[in-house]
Amino acid sequence: MKPESDSVLTKLKAESAPEWAAYLDHDFVRRLADGSLPEACFRHYLTQDYLFLIHFSRAHALAVYKAGDLDDMRQAAATLDALLNTEMDLHVRFCARWGLSEEDMAAIPEADANLAYTRFVLDTGMAGDLLDLLVALAPCVLGYGEIGARLLSKPSIPLEANPYREWIESYGGPEYQGVAEAAAAQIERAARRRLGVMPIQSPRWPGLSRTFRIATRLEIGFWDMGLAPADT
Amino acid sequence: MKPESDSVLTKLKAESAPEWAAYLDHDFVRRLADGSLPEACFRHYLTQDYLFLIHFSRAHALAVYKAGDLDDMRQAAATLDALLNTEMDLHVRFCARWGLSEEDMAAIPEADANLAYTRFVLDTGMAGDLLDLLVALAPCVLGYGEIGARLLSKPSIPLEANPYREWIESYGGPEYQGVAEAAAAQIERAARRRLGVMPIQSPRWPGLSRTFRIATRLEIGFWDMGLAPADT
Amino acid sequence: MKPESDSVLTKLKAESAPEWAAYLDHDFVRRLADGSLPEACFRHYLTQDYLFLIHFSRAHALAVYKAGDLDDMRQAAATLDALLNTEMDLHVRFCARWGLSEEDMAAIPEADANLAYTRFVLDTGMAGDLLDLLVALAPCVLGYGEIGARLLSKPSIPLEANPYREWIESYGGPEYQGVAEAAAAQIERAARRRLGVMPIQSPRWPGLSRTFRIATRLEIGFWDMGLAPADT
Amino acid sequence: MKPESDSVLTKLKAESAPEWAAYLDHDFVRRLADGSLPEACFRHYLTQDYLFLIHFSRAHALAVYKAGDLDDMRQAAATLDALLNTEMDLHVRFCARWGLSEEDMAAIPEADANLAYTRFVLDTGMAGDLLDLLVALAPCVLGYGEIGARLLSKPSIPLEANPYREWIESYGGPEYQGVAEAAAAQIERAARRRLGVMPIQSPRWPGLSRTFRIATRLEIGFWDMGLAPADT
Repeated sequence: MKPESDSVLTKLKAESAPEWAAYLDHDFVRRLADGSLPEACFRHYLTQDYLFLIHFSRAHALAVYKAGDLDDMRQAAATLDALLNTEMDLHVRFCARWGLSEEDMAAIPEADANLAYTRFVLDTGMAGDLLDLLVALAPCVLGYGEIGARLLSKPSIPLEANPYREWIESYGGPEYQGVAEAAAAQIERAARRRLGVMPIQSPRWPGLSRTFRIATRLEIGFWDMGLAPADT
Repeated sequence: MKPESDSVLTKLKAESAPEWAAYLDHDFVRRLADGSLPEACFRHYLTQDYLFLIHFSRAHALAVYKAGDLDDMRQAAATLDALLNTEMDLHVRFCARWGLSEEDMAAIPEADANLAYTRFVLDTGMAGDLLDLLVALAPCVLGYGEIGARLLSKPSIPLEANPYREWIESYGGPEYQGVAEAAAAQIERAARRRLGVMPIQSPRWPGLSRTFRIATRLEIGFWDMGLAPADT
Repeated sequence: MKPESDSVLTKLKAESAPEWAAYLDHDFVRRLADGSLPEACFRHYLTQDYLFLIHFSRAHALAVYKAGDLDDMRQAAATLDALLNTEMDLHVRFCARWGLSEEDMAAIPEADANLAYTRFVLDTGMAGDLLDLLVALAPCVLGYGEIGARLLSKPSIPLEANPYREWIESYGGPEYQGVAEAAAAQIERAARRRLGVMPIQSPRWPGLSRTFRIATRLEIGFWDMGLAPADT
Repeated sequence: MKPESDSVLTKLKAESAPEWAAYLDHDFVRRLADGSLPEACFRHYLTQDYLFLIHFSRAHALAVYKAGDLDDMRQAAATLDALLNTEMDLHVRFCARWGLSEEDMAAIPEADANLAYTRFVLDTGMAGDLLDLLVALAPCVLGYGEIGARLLSKPSIPLEANPYREWIESYGGPEYQGVAEAAAAQIERAARRRLGVMPIQSPRWPGLSRTFRIATRLEIGFWDMGLAPADT
């Protein structure tokens, strides 16, 4: 991969710096880190996140449809498999402790913040090409990777004392970190294959940067939703 | 058309009765009707509604793509033409009075409530068939038709004294009422062509009813957004 | 528009020069020009072309869905309207002389050459962005424009003596020529908006050129089909 | 599952009986069975089938996008995985013997018969719902299952003497037979979930039957292409 300073993702994050910081340092994240997040909030978040993953899986299936070459098809199919058959398990196990079956979870109405984010990603990807889709997906995959890594390496409280330790270990752990790195590499590659060696000079750049900013803003809205379990 | 009591739309509205009432009798609508709506709210609403119409036009283009026969293609293409070349003009004229050009309007960020609604409709339509798409579109077209007709026929204050008279006359007037009737007839027809003579007995019915309810809920969210111009 | 030598379309045609020539100078075209085409061939072609236009209309609806800005949306919607409400009329009128109603025509099975071409365009457009779609559409719109213009300006036999005069006048006439020019300008604009000022240097260029070549090859297959009315 | 006589697939095959027989008993199949198929034909077929599987994988990704519930999503994702990571291997191994790398195969132009079939399936699925897509996919999955089973259980010549033994064992073997059975069960389920307990009475039935017939006809065209390696 190109040195960090040349990377498409570095530039996307820089151009949405205030939103990116507000997403990574959100009060929801800080309270996950120090264990002070009320369980009702976490539960509201996690059940919505389960529904989110269904549509996030659909978005990766769309990436397979759109990919255009076997490498990108296989990478997106591998992520799809990881989402449907591994990541969702974390949610199912947590919810089982609260007495919620997978069927119960599937029956919970999607919050507006959830609808807004997932359907924005799907429509952006359907209307555009693979790169538009990958950029819309990026804030989720990469942001969770960064949050997980930070919370695991610099815990606010000892992990053993944190009720959300499992969530932190899941997103900070090597398996998810590998998924995030592969996703980052795929975006850099997809950008160079469509925009050339100077992606930021492309006339598509402002649109891609706007997509990244909107998706980051919608991630913030997702944390906000988590903190307000009474609304939907 | 079948007698009202058999109609798919009558049943859809009945099954979402609380949401449908909350949408049609929303405080935003009552304050449009009596002229007490602050201009800042109306302006926020109308600029967002302009952006909404862009994606609503895309949804009608999708209906042409999905239609399957020339009659449905031509009807959706006629609505697309009306949206792009007539309905948007109302918005452009209003905004021109506030010194906003069409370019200014296109540059305003979409509110989350707007993203949620429009992208939900588009993704529901893309994932399903023409009927899924038409049902997702129905609360907007038919709700505005009912609101327009009621505000025009039973005004809270004399229309001449209402600063929103033009909006009321536009949606209550014969042209828009004709659009709404044609849309209603198309849904009844599309339902019978896909679900048979007893649409409500179809195993697809609960899913269609859920789509209608979610879209109605997202219309309520759109009015809420209009009343809160400071947020987005 | 840029001078011809810089144009994206000039380059696309040059890179598919053998296919482009085989399409424009096809035996079907020469026999349309000199009036020697058997009526059975023309009739087979025209009824298939009617079915083609249905899917070509769907492709323009898809262009509205994909456009991304109002100018491109309005242009694609205008072409959609022209296809559904004007160009199909030529076919309906011809077929009426043979005693075929619009319903009869819609019931004729699509030939494989027709399926191959129309569905290739639709899938290429759905998988990619607006530019991929417009390039897949280009051989049809522009090729018919070039053929119509040439047959009208340099007729092989006096037009009055040509049984296909109406077809020639339709595609060679000012209305269709205007449609073709607007389509050409839209492609040049779309290319510059996505690929920058040097479209041919873009890493997407080989893929776009391949799309144009395949679509041109499928146009040749469409003429071949016209000459062989017994097969489908 | 319902008894065979009630099954949607039994009825679909019955309504396209001549096409279904022409596909299953095609000369290409008979010559595979008795080993008399010229290697050039098999090679042409297999390299095109490799390209076919890319688009067939895309169609299964589309099925994940369209599924609507987790069971159908997981089943389509499992088939996608089998296609991308197992079935293509058969092709890669065969082609390696002819000195063709996977890269060489990906560079071969798609034959028109290939374009017609794959893009018809993809567009039918995108325009309609999951059921439309599954019915368009059915002739391939189920036909290959039936052909493989028959060739394996009643070989025209001893398998050891058949140069195409590997192909026959692959499609006739338990793994592929399991894939075909799962696909059949999914279609029956999808039909009942959308059309009710009497699928054949649904107004959608004639359209679904037409989709099945066209896809079967396009499979015949694929075998025809295999027998004519000089054309494309």
